[in-house]
Amino acid sequence: MTEPLFPANSLATLRARLAILPRPDETAAEAAGTRQANLTKPPGALGRLEDLAIFMAGWQGTERPRIGKAQAVVFAGNHGVCAQGVNPYPQEVTSQMVANFRAGGAAINQLCRASGAELSVVELELDRPTGDFTQGLALSEAELLEAMARGAEALDPTADVLLLGEMGIGNSTVAAALAYATFGGTAADWVGRGTGSDDAGVQRKITAIEAGAKRHAALLDDPFTTLMAFGGREQAAICGAVLAAREKRIPVLLDGFICTAAAAVLARLEGDALAHCIVSHASAEPGQRGLLTHLGKAPILDLGMRLGEGSGAAVALGVLRAALEAHNGMATFAEAGISGA
Amino acid sequence: MTEPLFPANSLATLRARLAILPRPDETAAEAAGTRQANLTKPPGALGRLEDLAIFMAGWQGTERPRIGKAQAVVFAGNHGVCAQGVNPYPQEVTSQMVANFRAGGAAINQLCRASGAELSVVELELDRPTGDFTQGLALSEAELLEAMARGAEALDPTADVLLLGEMGIGNSTVAAALAYATFGGTAADWVGRGTGSDDAGVQRKITAIEAGAKRHAALLDDPFTTLMAFGGREQAAICGAVLAAREKRIPVLLDGFICTAAAAVLARLEGDALAHCIVSHASAEPGQRGLLTHLGKAPILDLGMRLGEGSGAAVALGVLRAALEAHNGMATFAEAGISGA
Repeated sequence: MTEPLFPANSLATLRARLAILPRPDETAAEAAGTRQANLTKPPGALGRLEDLAIFMAGWQGTERPRIGKAQAVVFAGNHGVCAQGVNPYPQEVTSQMVANFRAGGAAINQLCRASGAELSVVELELDRPTGDFTQGLALSEAELLEAMARGAEALDPTADVLLLGEMGIGNSTVAAALAYATFGGTAADWVGRGTGSDDAGVQRKITAIEAGAKRHAALLDDPFTTLMAFGGREQAAICGAVLAAREKRIPVLLDGFICTAAAAVLARLEGDALAHCIVSHASAEPGQRGLLTHLGKAPILDLGMRLGEGSGAAVALGVLRAALEAHNGMATFAEAGISGA
Repeated sequence: MTEPLFPANSLATLRARLAILPRPDETAAEAAGTRQANLTKPPGALGRLEDLAIFMAGWQGTERPRIGKAQAVVFAGNHGVCAQGVNPYPQEVTSQMVANFRAGGAAINQLCRASGAELSVVELELDRPTGDFTQGLALSEAELLEAMARGAEALDPTADVLLLGEMGIGNSTVAAALAYATFGGTAADWVGRGTGSDDAGVQRKITAIEAGAKRHAALLDDPFTTLMAFGGREQAAICGAVLAAREKRIPVLLDGFICTAAAAVLARLEGDALAHCIVSHASAEPGQRGLLTHLGKAPILDLGMRLGEGSGAAVALGVLRAALEAHNGMATFAEAGISGA
């Protein structure tokens, strides 16, 4: 039994642990695959639902994976880069939306109820935005480690699946900066309209990202210093939760562009780091397609959603539950006495 | 109040009624759209979920559409064209799978439980397959009217949404023939591997469809005579159910290729005939893409499924329920006291 990953006292500790992440139980996954082949349907006819059941079997370490408890966590943070005019909404909206989550009035509340996820919201020092990354570091090392620990601590170790989402005015700019640092291309490749930027707003996002990337160029070959460069706290918390879930072999449903861009920084140092993560949906935010390509992941859903909050993960949970119902509940050909081809 | 559509005493009656189908309530749809614009999210950020809520509002005639009862019906039939070697499985499998549905062991049973649909199965004279369409008509006019009436009678008029599916060894060949007759191209454009045909099996499907299309060429400019030419009873029942649902303004979730190809024949005479229908998923059966293009419909899901039974519709129901939960349960900006852009 290894020590818990968090709280981590240095980035070196985190880097070392990234290299020894637990792997899925291949025996359980193979048993689940054999079961799928014997269920009363042509082989492969349930498509992605079959893959999802086998994926869950591997991470849960059982031929018959189940979702009793589905935990959804929304991390909320504020961002100094808003000083660059990258978002049409004022930063107060972040805490106003957190209040909306707590009152049960947001999309994520309804979508979690619909798919049976237990929602919690983690506020990350909303009254203390990260530094403006065009002017300096977004987060100090201590702030980064603290935010990652908050993410890791949010995990319920009894959860059967973890859904991750975020809220933070300005954070589509942060996500685009992280994706640009991690995967390259041009800043414009990763920038979209977010909550509703016009053309000039999109250009301000690009300008800010280019300035930040130039300023922090020496930091961008490592996931943790990249997070220090651009932030934000909710992105760091998502990385902490992803790593904590991996240590417990709990599968993760990442939401859309912002959530996936946050987790994707981990793949820079260790390509396998997101093996336990599913990307829930191909959001309408244009950078998401590039993330999916670079990560080699296919989304479950493609519904033109671009809200964040974990909304796509909550809808995808319904598909994941359907996959497991079919996997566990169907009769085999032998049980049903059905003729073969 | 018009007379019930079924039982219909002639094809002429059906053709006349196709021209006077009820339309959605545009006022309710507009009210739902206004509500969506005021909910606590950037406009449009829930993507397809918003469209689905507005669609449901129009057909249910209320700003706040709900799904109390979701009815799923699987129609099962057998096909004379199996004499041409178009399917690797014996025809007994149709009734064996019906028994599996009744025993609760099939995929559709689990998927309906997961999404909260009430499942019923309608057997359509399984011991009396349709005629082999390479040799003559699949269905007489009386048989067609009877099968359509069975479909219409299966509708629960208190349902808030109807999910349609099918089971019938050989019916991917029938579906491809219907699609070819309705939308043209080549027979090969519409043929796939179905339950698992090899290359020679695929060629037998193409040969049978070409022979049938040549034999019945004079019948293929009308949906009802096209159904007489190729069958099958489950396809006719799907058309009956689609029309009966339309008369009650009940929205329909069509399943994949076979179900959509059946309903699509109605669009030949009246382009608006499927306005109340959603195509649940883009199945892996290759002809489905062509159907979606010709019908101008976007699927809800694209999960590589190709099972039939209504399985894709049952999974899509979960997304539809999520859409309505968000629509009905979210707070408006005014209710939540959130600042605007």
